[in-house]
Amino acid sequence: MDAPHLFLILAAMLAAGKLMGELAERIGQPAVLGELIAGVLLGRTFLGVIPMEGTGANYVYLLAQLGVVLLLFEIGLETNLREMFRLGGASLSVACVGVLAPFLLGFLFWMYVPHLVVASSGSLSSTAIFVGATLTATSVGITARVLSDLGRMNDKESRIIIGAAVADDIIGLVILTVVTGIATGAAVSLMGILRTLAVAVGLLVAAVVIGRYLAPRLFDRVQRMRVRHVLVGFAFAFMLGMAALAAFGGSAAIIGAFAAGLILSGVNQFDVIEREVKPVVGLFAPLFFVYVGATVDFGLLNPFQPGAGGVLGLAAALTLIALVGKIVAGWAAPWERIRKLVVGVGMIPRGEVGLIFADIGRRSGLLGEELFSALLLMVMITTFVAPIGLKSVFRRIPESP
Amino acid sequence: MDAPHLFLILAAMLAAGKLMGELAERIGQPAVLGELIAGVLLGRTFLGVIPMEGTGANYVYLLAQLGVVLLLFEIGLETNLREMFRLGGASLSVACVGVLAPFLLGFLFWMYVPHLVVASSGSLSSTAIFVGATLTATSVGITARVLSDLGRMNDKESRIIIGAAVADDIIGLVILTVVTGIATGAAVSLMGILRTLAVAVGLLVAAVVIGRYLAPRLFDRVQRMRVRHVLVGFAFAFMLGMAALAAFGGSAAIIGAFAAGLILSGVNQFDVIEREVKPVVGLFAPLFFVYVGATVDFGLLNPFQPGAGGVLGLAAALTLIALVGKIVAGWAAPWERIRKLVVGVGMIPRGEVGLIFADIGRRSGLLGEELFSALLLMVMITTFVAPIGLKSVFRRIPESP
Repeated sequence: MDAPHLFLILAAMLAAGKLMGELAERIGQPAVLGELIAGVLLGRTFLGVIPMEGTGANYVYLLAQLGVVLLLFEIGLETNLREMFRLGGASLSVACVGVLAPFLLGFLFWMYVPHLVVASSGSLSSTAIFVGATLTATSVGITARVLSDLGRMNDKESRIIIGAAVADDIIGLVILTVVTGIATGAAVSLMGILRTLAVAVGLLVAAVVIGRYLAPRLFDRVQRMRVRHVLVGFAFAFMLGMAALAAFGGSAAIIGAFAAGLILSGVNQFDVIEREVKPVVGLFAPLFFVYVGATVDFGLLNPFQPGAGGVLGLAAALTLIALVGKIVAGWAAPWERIRKLVVGVGMIPRGEVGLIFADIGRRSGLLGEELFSALLLMVMITTFVAPIGLKSVFRRIPESP
Repeated sequence: MDAPHLFLILAAMLAAGKLMGELAERIGQPAVLGELIAGVLLGRTFLGVIPMEGTGANYVYLLAQLGVVLLLFEIGLETNLREMFRLGGASLSVACVGVLAPFLLGFLFWMYVPHLVVASSGSLSSTAIFVGATLTATSVGITARVLSDLGRMNDKESRIIIGAAVADDIIGLVILTVVTGIATGAAVSLMGILRTLAVAVGLLVAAVVIGRYLAPRLFDRVQRMRVRHVLVGFAFAFMLGMAALAAFGGSAAIIGAFAAGLILSGVNQFDVIEREVKPVVGLFAPLFFVYVGATVDFGLLNPFQPGAGGVLGLAAALTLIALVGKIVAGWAAPWERIRKLVVGVGMIPRGEVGLIFADIGRRSGLLGEELFSALLLMVMITTFVAPIGLKSVFRRIPESP
């Protein structure tokens, strides 16, 4: 595959992603859903424009990886640790229940409920951990976007939801590290979990420490340089270096990128960096979602195909667990029932974080094609259902200051 | 090569490019020179960080190609056809002499002057055409940057220089198409030249026509879409599609990208697109220059190596031709001698356009390693000499309104 062919594929992915993203927003859904659907249309199920094998597939995969690393970098940049701490106990307990409940329900479901689909290569417990982990995610990006679309961003409930979603994101990234370790073949031993936990927590703690002390001084020096785009250039080099470091250290590249974002959220040149990072993320992140959509074999979901019943039934069960697990989390908030419900529904969308989990699980072979498709369907349904649900429950409570 | 390794190489290229670009600017030179030197340091001559063979090299090459395509897109965006036409005859005659004189001198030099270095694979005349073509380039980016650094951007001489450099850029792109056709093995027949000329001129004419009529309507529709970064997303998809189209049509990808930039310079959403394109170009364009620097085998320029004398002597002769050919062009401007000299010196820097020519020539095999190195040295010296020269001649004339 030469450069012009790759350019044409990228052009198709970008245009289709933006177009379907727009259509999704027009019917009140998040743009990421449209990008997934664009991928499904361009992918192996329908048009076959996006190559899935050979060197072309490698190029597209690498650019998609660049996209997801950039996205986590941006989320890190936008995460305000202090604000999260200020929201205190309520957010944190919602986040903890919102992680534990879906994880346990998913794990136990896969371990002990008999199911028709058995297509994974690893041990039963490894696969069950991946199923649970994929169910824990909350997409802070989608949740924040929906709340701001509803004009209720400053409600107390909204702030709890955002705080919990951010905490959930960090917990989720720690879980992702553990799960990535499992995926790369490490045995599910306590020592292994502790080691991978240590790398992730170490990176995040280092992020906070370096972020407060070293990074501001470094970037004050960079700011005195006069060559064009020097701030964003060094910010990207730093992010790519951290991503590589995290990956080499046994964690995931996106955790390094997230930590780099956290660090740079504390430097004095934050505004310039964020302003110049946003268009780059806006171009590359959709490539990841379109790519993920393209990798799904929707033939598995065709109800007229043999075996489709199993996948669809499994997807229905997983979606039920996903909804129940997060609505339960709302009950950790100390209020009347309707406000608990608002918080719980706000935690439902799995979005890009769920996709990342599922994608790693499939690449490792622990999630077979059918289980992956069912999980992807769960992610898509929760991402699709949340905005509608939030709109309808938010309508029933008055605005709170 | 996996994603984290690529991320690390990209981080090194970005950081070193910005750092050396800064150092270059500190000593009064354009940043692009620093990026080339960063590439030399990271490349095969010294550290060997940037892979030159295998899949890793392919990935880096593709991202560098994305960088140069983006750069030409930006140059197209910033090219104002109307302003160039307004500057009229003077600019155009300077541009024409500034293309013809270096081309003829370079062509005749390679055809008829006996030289020690003969390392190319193609016919003598094909190689001579490439040598002449590489000598024709003027870097509008570097020239404009130097003039604005001197605070003389609004002088009449400066406007003539910019106008001529822009015209030179367009003529250069047409020449590039011809030369790319030659590089891809087409015989140097009049029909072949006319065909490649027709594709390039056709693309540019189509750019102007579409730019004035269709693109504004299309992007007015895109602007009504609400999904984030939709304008820059469609602008990039359009640019990548045009680049691919030009390449498939027998022209060069960068001509398609330049034409896409010309088209989008006329849409109502130009400001938003330019603002969001700039950081992306600022990140990816240095990758191209660092990559080009990395590909040079500076061992060939070591004066203590056998054969180095030939390369250095050749570089000296080519540099002399490069200086004379452009200073002569200044005499096409209708003024007293010192102002002619200002215009001529302003046309000297070959910059990125010269590099692109030389790179295509080397990839095609028409320029052997030694000739390529000598041409690269010529490009670097002219790029290096121009700011110093312009500063010293501009000091001798009063500011003109």
